[in-house]
Amino acid sequence: MKKRVLLTNDDGIYAQGLLALYETLREDFEVHVVAPEIEMSAVGHAITLHNPIRVKEVYRRGKFYGYAVTGTPADCVKLATQELLNGFPPDVVISGINLGANVGVNVLYSGTVSAATEAAFLGFSSAAISLDTVTKPDFGFAAKFAKRIAEFLMELRLVYKIALNVNIPALSEEQIEGVEFTTQGTARFIERFEKRVDPRGNVYYWLTGEVPMEDPRPDSDGKVLKSKKISITPLHFDLTHYPSLKVLRDEKGFLEKLWKGTL
Amino acid sequence: MKKRVLLTNDDGIYAQGLLALYETLREDFEVHVVAPEIEMSAVGHAITLHNPIRVKEVYRRGKFYGYAVTGTPADCVKLATQELLNGFPPDVVISGINLGANVGVNVLYSGTVSAATEAAFLGFSSAAISLDTVTKPDFGFAAKFAKRIAEFLMELRLVYKIALNVNIPALSEEQIEGVEFTTQGTARFIERFEKRVDPRGNVYYWLTGEVPMEDPRPDSDGKVLKSKKISITPLHFDLTHYPSLKVLRDEKGFLEKLWKGTL
Repeated sequence: MKKRVLLTNDDGIYAQGLLALYETLREDFEVHVVAPEIEMSAVGHAITLHNPIRVKEVYRRGKFYGYAVTGTPADCVKLATQELLNGFPPDVVISGINLGANVGVNVLYSGTVSAATEAAFLGFSSAAISLDTVTKPDFGFAAKFAKRIAEFLMELRLVYKIALNVNIPALSEEQIEGVEFTTQGTARFIERFEKRVDPRGNVYYWLTGEVPMEDPRPDSDGKVLKSKKISITPLHFDLTHYPSLKVLRDEKGFLEKLWKGTL
Repeated sequence: MKKRVLLTNDDGIYAQGLLALYETLREDFEVHVVAPEIEMSAVGHAITLHNPIRVKEVYRRGKFYGYAVTGTPADCVKLATQELLNGFPPDVVISGINLGANVGVNVLYSGTVSAATEAAFLGFSSAAISLDTVTKPDFGFAAKFAKRIAEFLMELRLVYKIALNVNIPALSEEQIEGVEFTTQGTARFIERFEKRVDPRGNVYYWLTGEVPMEDPRPDSDGKVLKSKKISITPLHFDLTHYPSLKVLRDEKGFLEKLWKGTL
């Protein structure tokens, strides 16, 4: 029996990157597509609580392709695994192929990645696949590599389910120099807002000027990607900062200060 | 000179929880309010890239209260610190007071918390304050405790800036039994979707039935909150799962398998 793969993304169900995954993965797997109806970039780990979620069947060349969902990538994973797949859980969830890298702190803003982390905490192995380009994408190798990742996740027998954040250089297979397991870079961006005035005299702003700062760690996702290698970072969803927790707990006076207000 | 505190939230600038913070913190601090114009719950760490952001001055009883922003909590923090505060950075950023606890995996979905983590990675000490009730809130003690947290953050001299996720029981000060530094619970929710049909015969879904599973760790945020104590979890934004990274790196065959596709 074929293994089942659930595909989703944040660029929307009509995106080329998703289609590339679909075409390549269904060579070997039973593939299910459940993706946002419209583009959902930078939605982070949003979910839809205050609106109903609608689902539409999408056809390609007269054949059923998948479900378009009026929600976020995380909504798609929840709805797919609990409703739309009729009780047959996927073996692996793959999100992508995103147009543009998801490295460093961008990981937090990424809808593509949040679909993978949502899948992981629902108990599924998953990966987010991103291609490091925003123009003229060739998804061929990235889709092929995504299939390898799906097979790898099916083979791995980890106690806990992990989400892999995979970033692929926008190069031909021959030009790519390898694969590394990496850390999420923590260097932030230098951003600015561009202030404009609309024709009616009202001020508005665009977020712009995103200059990445240098990450000090050589094994970070961004650095590895820049060296023409594929970066794979295992992600989790425990945001506790344990070193700080230790500092806070070790200083015995802190709790009393906070509790009694004697600062 | 008074210390500067930036206030934001995800319930929107007209929320009572934000007003309670404002009234209490301005007793001692110079307070700036920059918050979403409308409710932004469960937006996760979304940012606005594809739409312009508008800003509106909001007045209360004829006096300037703050800026309403057509964006997410994370947008508010970015825009406030880079534009609206005129180059005077806040000493501390406080997000809240949220109506409802933000514990366990809900932390990932929370706009309140994402404002605090956004502030931390922009280099500011910050806290997200949530009150564990959704009905008849009394924000009095929570606001008072938020002031203590702000003072605590100003006193702490950590090399890196942290975000504190603070959850407060909906009890009177006398009934609260203490404060603990906690970990983020990782137990997930048992959710389901309610399927309905609209008057025109179309199917739609509501996300519902959120039953929290038990977290195995006694020092987790949810467990501590249930024991009538205030929980304080230091958060960060490096999602790398280091134990998995070690497993992946230690197994020498993995990289070769992935690279050569010889699975």
